Amino acid sequence: MEKQWSEEWSRFEALFRQISSYNEAVGLLAWDLRTGAPKKGVASRSETLGMLSTEAFKLLTSAEMGELIQALSAPSVQEQLNELQRRMVQEAGKEYDRNKSLPAERFKEYTVLAAQSESMWEDAKKNDDFVGFEPYLSRIVEFKKEFIGYWGAKQTPYDTLLDMYEPDMTVAELDEVFQRLTARLVPLAQTIRERGKQPETAFMHQLFDVGQQEKFGLFILEQMGYDFEAGRLDESVHPFAIGLNNGDVRITTHYLQDEVTSAVFSSLHEGGHALYEQNIEAALHGTPLSGGTSMGIHESQSRLWENMIGRSRAFWKRYFRDLQQHFPQQFGDVEAEAFYRAVNRVENSFIRIEADELTYNLHIIIRYEIEKMLFNEGLSVKELPEIWNAKYKEYLGIMPPDDRMGVLQDVHWSGGDFGYFASYSLGNMYAAQFMHTMRKEMPDLDQLIEEGNLTPIKEWLTDKILRYGKSEKPSEIIVRVTGEPLNPDYLADYLEAKYKDVYQL
Amino acid sequence: MEKQWSEEWSRFEALFRQISSYNEAVGLLAWDLRTGAPKKGVASRSETLGMLSTEAFKLLTSAEMGELIQALSAPSVQEQLNELQRRMVQEAGKEYDRNKSLPAERFKEYTVLAAQSESMWEDAKKNDDFVGFEPYLSRIVEFKKEFIGYWGAKQTPYDTLLDMYEPDMTVAELDEVFQRLTARLVPLAQTIRERGKQPETAFMHQLFDVGQQEKFGLFILEQMGYDFEAGRLDESVHPFAIGLNNGDVRITTHYLQDEVTSAVFSSLHEGGHALYEQNIEAALHGTPLSGGTSMGIHESQSRLWENMIGRSRAFWKRYFRDLQQHFPQQFGDVEAEAFYRAVNRVENSFIRIEADELTYNLHIIIRYEIEKMLFNEGLSVKELPEIWNAKYKEYLGIMPPDDRMGVLQDVHWSGGDFGYFASYSLGNMYAAQFMHTMRKEMPDLDQLIEEGNLTPIKEWLTDKILRYGKSEKPSEIIVRVTGEPLNPDYLADYLEAKYKDVYQL
Repeated sequence: MEKQWSEEWSRFEALFRQISSYNEAVGLLAWDLRTGAPKKGVASRSETLGMLSTEAFKLLTSAEMGELIQALSAPSVQEQLNELQRRMVQEAGKEYDRNKSLPAERFKEYTVLAAQSESMWEDAKKNDDFVGFEPYLSRIVEFKKEFIGYWGAKQTPYDTLLDMYEPDMTVAELDEVFQRLTARLVPLAQTIRERGKQPETAFMHQLFDVGQQEKFGLFILEQMGYDFEAGRLDESVHPFAIGLNNGDVRITTHYLQDEVTSAVFSSLHEGGHALYEQNIEAALHGTPLSGGTSMGIHESQSRLWENMIGRSRAFWKRYFRDLQQHFPQQFGDVEAEAFYRAVNRVENSFIRIEADELTYNLHIIIRYEIEKMLFNEGLSVKELPEIWNAKYKEYLGIMPPDDRMGVLQDVHWSGGDFGYFASYSLGNMYAAQFMHTMRKEMPDLDQLIEEGNLTPIKEWLTDKILRYGKSEKPSEIIVRVTGEPLNPDYLADYLEAKYKDVYQL
Repeated sequence: MEKQWSEEWSRFEALFRQISSYNEAVGLLAWDLRTGAPKKGVASRSETLGMLSTEAFKLLTSAEMGELIQALSAPSVQEQLNELQRRMVQEAGKEYDRNKSLPAERFKEYTVLAAQSESMWEDAKKNDDFVGFEPYLSRIVEFKKEFIGYWGAKQTPYDTLLDMYEPDMTVAELDEVFQRLTARLVPLAQTIRERGKQPETAFMHQLFDVGQQEKFGLFILEQMGYDFEAGRLDESVHPFAIGLNNGDVRITTHYLQDEVTSAVFSSLHEGGHALYEQNIEAALHGTPLSGGTSMGIHESQSRLWENMIGRSRAFWKRYFRDLQQHFPQQFGDVEAEAFYRAVNRVENSFIRIEADELTYNLHIIIRYEIEKMLFNEGLSVKELPEIWNAKYKEYLGIMPPDDRMGVLQDVHWSGGDFGYFASYSLGNMYAAQFMHTMRKEMPDLDQLIEEGNLTPIKEWLTDKILRYGKSEKPSEIIVRVTGEPLNPDYLADYLEAKYKDVYQL
């Protein structure tokens, strides 16, 4: 008996394959821009990027898409679909409903403005010129507020933004979670500052051959299980990972001659993102369920590899001798334990991306609170520098000397990425909670790491998290894997134990 | 007074900008595939390439395009358009008329088959298996014959194919031109073989550091006037040049450790193509008149730089000392004159891409005659190896030992590029004719080259040829620049004079 809905299903699948092809092209164009596209081609390239993004957006919000989702959502069809198919229709429906009333013309105008604004931000940061940047940022915020109208406000307008990066995450939940986290991390950071024994870091300040750094980075990626037949490593100003299709997930890094750890930890970080995209089940590629399920879960993978594995004592017990072999002059006389302590130095600092594992979360909470004020409490863009500096004083006890070291430091807002920052701390919290379960299920974890056997970690993550792609929501994954909802105590426990040890408290 | 047709003109321009954006994305996807895309991503990538190509094809043949061309072709509008605008409408009309009856579905099927066939050819060439490849090639030929039906047969079916690469070129003209060329080149090659003094080439067979080769190649490209802010140099198995947009024209090369000249001449060759695309007037970008006017004129630029400049005595009088500096061990004791003679050694060989400047044309004429038989005279694909070998015996006096060295050597037919080969010899003929005029207008040309002042050459070519893009046809350009139509005697004269000197005849 032929299924009544098989023709609709084929058209539904074909539409998503086409959207996925547009996204692949857009991804490659963007990758290319950041890894060496000639500068005279950038203007035309931006136009091409805008055109292809808009075509994908049009398909996603097309009348045909609306009709297909409606047809496939009918109860008589739904009962014949399998669970995965129902999830695909549901996910497509969510995207469609969110965007259907947003005019493609406004979307395109916004895309162009965001590209301009990002380039204005670069200049503003260079020249410490918040006043010159403010009109652009204000227009971006106005656009976002207008779009929230089209997308539909959830509990609060800012909830709508959070949901785009972390489905179903709410201000109510984050407020509570961040409050619990702050209550434990602020005193911990203070204790460390006042009574901790600072690790020695003098041996970190040397020169390191870039060719040797690249070799070591490739070695570490191979150890993690990154598949070089389904990816490649390049250089860019800011490191990133990007999945073009299920067999092509690229990462970049950035080498600093006087800072060997920067490229090492960025390789572990981007490698964690890449392992996620490389290990999603192939059958999900080109469907509404392809890609990672949320920015928070994605970030849990990068931070788990960068910090919880890569900044662990066990890791350097095993891999410091390889680093020594790459840099015998610099590290010949250094002990693995000293290196471990040095890469875990805690310091209250102005710049988020240079922050340590502990205070990093405070940088995030500051941004979260400011974004909430901007969208829910009427804070104006003009007031940003003042509120920024006040929050840094409150949470970290330091006052940025200028806006370059303050409100102008991050690219995110210039490109309209409001609601994104929370993902970083969510990633830390998810990662700590996953690690807690992983340790219970693999009691010999540290020993495996010390033996240089990282494969079981990759396999555990793949089996429990990665392969599902978007077919489960973050809140479902965390409960299925760890047996309970998001709980910030795992991160606080982990940080407390680790840093009391490192700082000999 | 507002123009009646301004709205149609805006829509016409917008359509071509969109087509041009699709082409830019397709170009980058193809560039990436050849310069290091991970192999597990190739399958999905092919689908993306096919989708974007088809979208561009659909726009080119859309009902909207048809209506706009019709509206803009009305006599009342035509008389208000400027000459460039009339040419744009004319060129768009030609493409539209050619393709409007070709069903997009058949175009897509053909695109997929051509990709498969190209990969089958790779295996067939490796295994010397023409029989296994024959069914694919036969289907490609059948497709082309079907498409000629849609495109409309010109004087003969094969004329339709020629016209796609060289607008307005005909079998009648090429027959005559090639006959005149053969009549002079075959005896010349024979005289050289029988009585010429072969140049010494022993010093060419050494090992050459690839890093040094790259440095020398970059230096030569810079000398030619290649703009590195509007391009980049990468490595690929087969060298190529590709224009993504008017500020992004990339080239690739391929380094052989035991063959220093391969990368040098491929850089000059692809550099010549790239100078064309980099120097087309910016206003033509994104219009129907963007890009080079024909494959033959394009090839005239690559061959002019590779052979007529790059294999000239004047060039090596100037640049051999730089080559020596890059390879002092290998070339310290070699004279510039000896090197000049060595890179101009003539030899009857089986492989087109390894052929010298003189016999190269005979390789092309063989392919031209075979293609003509295939499309105009009922030759079947099965008969190809036999006829191929017979022609090599006739024109070059040698018999390929197997099909790898014979009919399977070129990629072109596997991808459906019939009618393309003639462009290579057309390029040689155009180039010789352009050079003849350039020498008349710049009597001190050799001296400029000996001084390493190549800028006037690039400027002359830009002024006379490059900047026009597709706004003039090949037959118009050759007459405007040289004062007469295509004349094969310039190439024959040049080759005769050069090789009688090199071979001391």
